[in-house]
Amino acid sequence: SLYAPSAVVISKTQGASADAPAQRAVTLRCLPVGGDHPAPEKACAALREAGGDPAALPRYVEDTGRVCTREYRPVTVSVQGVWDGRRIDHAQTFSNSCELEKQTASVYAF
Amino acid sequence: SLYAPSAVVISKTQGASADAPAQRAVTLRCLPVGGDHPAPEKACAALREAGGDPAALPRYVEDTGRVCTREYRPVTVSVQGVWDGRRIDHAQTFSNSCELEKQTASVYAF
Repeated sequence: SLYAPSAVVISKTQGASADAPAQRAVTLRCLPVGGDHPAPEKACAALREAGGDPAALPRYVEDTGRVCTREYRPVTVSVQGVWDGRRIDHAQTFSNSCELEKQTASVYAF
Repeated sequence: SLYAPSAVVISKTQGASADAPAQRAVTLRCLPVGGDHPAPEKACAALREAGGDPAALPRYVEDTGRVCTREYRPVTVSVQGVWDGRRIDHAQTFSNSCELEKQTASVYAF
């Protein structure tokens, strides 16, 4: 394709450490959209809005007013690969899966 | 699937720096085999033989006796993602694309 490639592996695991073995992982390609992510169009749109920076996702995801409990059952997510040709190696821990979904919408919903 | 996930993004760029923007990237999933790598079965078999360590590939790839020139036109490749659930973030520069292909066979042939 004409664009510098955007292709990432997004992985998820229970617990607060990025070194814990990933339990689930999906691939995501954008421009053109592809991979085995369950909602590739939405995930690509969210990452594009965040300028390809997964850490910025919470700032761009629409606040649906959803309220999460303060339960601490941490989930750690990672995004590794290239976005517009630039290498990405992002890891972030959320206090529970409700917070994860609330702050990042479709990107880690798999 | 029953296995800890193995899914990676493999990228390639001219030049000797892993920070240079990737020009090409493919996704590869193993167990089950998938992604948009042109030869996913072969690439998965090669990475499995190397114990999921891209740096070990040259030790396992069959020497076809192919001779490469000593021309210096470096190519840098990266493998990022998870293998058996473990995070991988590998980058390696080869002196030219003939050496790359000779030492790593199908993995970076895209």
